[in-house]
Amino acid sequence: MPDKTAPDAARRSQRSRQAICEAALSLVGETGYDKLTIEGIAARAGVGKQTIYRWWPSKGAVLLDAFTETMEAGEGTLPDTGDLATDLKAVLRATVDEFNDPAFQAPYRALYVAMVNDSEVSAGFTSKVMEPGTQAYVDRIRAAQDAGEVSEDIDPRLAAELILGPFAQRWLLRSQPLTHEFADSLVDMALTGLRPRNPRA
Amino acid sequence: MPDKTAPDAARRSQRSRQAICEAALSLVGETGYDKLTIEGIAARAGVGKQTIYRWWPSKGAVLLDAFTETMEAGEGTLPDTGDLATDLKAVLRATVDEFNDPAFQAPYRALYVAMVNDSEVSAGFTSKVMEPGTQAYVDRIRAAQDAGEVSEDIDPRLAAELILGPFAQRWLLRSQPLTHEFADSLVDMALTGLRPRNPRA
Repeated sequence: MPDKTAPDAARRSQRSRQAICEAALSLVGETGYDKLTIEGIAARAGVGKQTIYRWWPSKGAVLLDAFTETMEAGEGTLPDTGDLATDLKAVLRATVDEFNDPAFQAPYRALYVAMVNDSEVSAGFTSKVMEPGTQAYVDRIRAAQDAGEVSEDIDPRLAAELILGPFAQRWLLRSQPLTHEFADSLVDMALTGLRPRNPRA
Repeated sequence: MPDKTAPDAARRSQRSRQAICEAALSLVGETGYDKLTIEGIAARAGVGKQTIYRWWPSKGAVLLDAFTETMEAGEGTLPDTGDLATDLKAVLRATVDEFNDPAFQAPYRALYVAMVNDSEVSAGFTSKVMEPGTQAYVDRIRAAQDAGEVSEDIDPRLAAELILGPFAQRWLLRSQPLTHEFADSLVDMALTGLRPRNPRA
């Protein structure tokens, strides 16, 4: 007779992990990062504190896994219509909408806190969240380079940072509103550069 | 006879504030933001917890004041040699050195955490730290615009963000090293833009 306990245990573990991740995301949206505790997550998820510590070393680590599990597969590529400006603006406008959504913003902001604060969470955040997102821009910019839309001597990685950096900073600092107009202007400025294109025209 | 107690009290207050700010900066460098507490700052500064709460609502607020008091007056302008690329690179290289210095990095990183986490600290951080720094770039870029070095239709504020955003993000994410070469490449790319300058040359 086959052993039925092992799959059951695995299913129970999977359910507990899922409950813990959902509890962490909903709770951080209510309390903010500072007041988020492992105890609070455990209580909300209906598990013991030790269950959480068995899988994660810190609240930041829980948040990171919780957040990456909500990320959709297939976010790894940008559209390619043959016009780089159009494609970058479309993706960046969608990202504006996402970052202005409180349900997304609260846990992502908390994750940023955890990441800035903790170099281990930072490494996971960079490799699981930021790098795949950045790489999608790098790939699209490289394709534009092959098509002659982008200068040959441009480093696609730095070019991706030129667009993503100002976006992330404006969101983080809450200094100015994050709008579609901002997304469009940022893309145009990065593509065109500050120097006059036709100084003698 | 003039009242001598008031100036003495003011001096004592000033000394306590100073001790609290120094304690907060040194302590956060040792413990990180998560483990920083008002109790710990009070113990290090040799004052009572209530003395701190009389002046500041949170550890983030203490850090913000402590940090802004260390900022030097006159950081508000960029050099103007008549060549924008040279000036931006000089300032950005100096900023690279500053951000790679652990004595600066630890409290500044903690302040970033406090800021992302807390919208009140965020407002103070933006107005006291980020805006003056950004404004110096805006002013220098506007001067370059007047000199014909920068296109007339460029928004100097967005142009400043185009340079400062990728810099801040690379530092925050620890994804890639913060070097003089990065500073130079960032300035060149922002000035030139991604699109080929002479597509038919």
